[in-house]
Amino acid sequence: MRERILEKAQELFFRFGVKSVTMDDIARELGISKKTIYQHFEDKNSMVCAGVKHHFECDHFIAEKIHNEAPNPIAEAVMGAEMMRQTMSGLNPSAIFDIKKYYPQAWDMFSQYKKEFVLDLIRRNIKKGIEMGLYRSNVNAEVIARLRLEQVEMGLDPYIFPVGQFNPLDTQLELLDHFLRGIVTPEGLELYEEYTKTQLSVSISLSALLNTKSTY
Amino acid sequence: MRERILEKAQELFFRFGVKSVTMDDIARELGISKKTIYQHFEDKNSMVCAGVKHHFECDHFIAEKIHNEAPNPIAEAVMGAEMMRQTMSGLNPSAIFDIKKYYPQAWDMFSQYKKEFVLDLIRRNIKKGIEMGLYRSNVNAEVIARLRLEQVEMGLDPYIFPVGQFNPLDTQLELLDHFLRGIVTPEGLELYEEYTKTQLSVSISLSALLNTKSTY
Repeated sequence: MRERILEKAQELFFRFGVKSVTMDDIARELGISKKTIYQHFEDKNSMVCAGVKHHFECDHFIAEKIHNEAPNPIAEAVMGAEMMRQTMSGLNPSAIFDIKKYYPQAWDMFSQYKKEFVLDLIRRNIKKGIEMGLYRSNVNAEVIARLRLEQVEMGLDPYIFPVGQFNPLDTQLELLDHFLRGIVTPEGLELYEEYTKTQLSVSISLSALLNTKSTY
Repeated sequence: MRERILEKAQELFFRFGVKSVTMDDIARELGISKKTIYQHFEDKNSMVCAGVKHHFECDHFIAEKIHNEAPNPIAEAVMGAEMMRQTMSGLNPSAIFDIKKYYPQAWDMFSQYKKEFVLDLIRRNIKKGIEMGLYRSNVNAEVIARLRLEQVEMGLDPYIFPVGQFNPLDTQLELLDHFLRGIVTPEGLELYEEYTKTQLSVSISLSALLNTKSTY
């Protein structure tokens, strides 16, 4: 039951933002009483924290799987973009900023996750790309990894990219495209442009990856 | 006298940060009494605001001059980098974050200046680069201009780039280098690499520009 509640809550938070979804909404959607929810979650804050934790566990698992199975760092980035495309297609941008504003404990978990796992993942991607001759050897991996890390959050910031004026997914894809073009060698650029033409096959192999998620 | 006080204050803020420089320090450095300072500035807050305003007026003037005199947008960016190199060589990074933290009125002026003048300057640079075939025609100028705008502040953020671990100027130059590489066409890249080899001549023409500052 705990898992069912959490999944429904995440689904609603994703679609409508965190602040506007109440415990009543979640209970109603599941056809259970609020009392049942409170048997599993002390309050909304602890539910949001559990949701964020669960989201990161899935994200971590898929990102590591892509990292290990992608033939090279550029493929990894393109597959990461496809993963982002799927995640963001149903995401209400308020969800992120509601958490930042109203759930500082969950936001701290987000920052911690970013600083520890995501930064390291990007750093490894950059170093491998340099080794393989796909990224320029004079890229300062520490600076550029932090730039990439901040870009994702920047792209979701409604103060920088007002929601009415920018589509959050398009913004993310534009930022990633620019990021990759800024670090590739001519050889890497050729490979990248090849991938962007054949997005479908990358997308299919990502679906295969995503299907393994349930075994986790 | 007002101008002399302001120039000295700016010099000290630049070197030591805003918070740690007192009105006493400024008076002592100028060999005048604090009373004289208070005849021109109500308090430290109004002095910081006047300093920020004066800094932006100079910055605006030089940036417009570079924009008008640079033969192309890549030259403009390289000359902008040289200007940044000169400005930042004596800058204590605390100065920026002291303002953000303790002088919200001055910080708002900073944000306003960024949003109005700097964003427009970058946007014009990108559009001209696309027109001249030096930047890719499929660059989304609105997204990429905002990326560049945020990069400058990001590079100065000690939470992202801890001062002991990163040199602020090197970080800024790495970010700008990556930014330009991410938008250029092959033709633009060739021109950019040409400029980075001949930095000296750009630097000299910048000095010529800077010397005209006093006529302003």
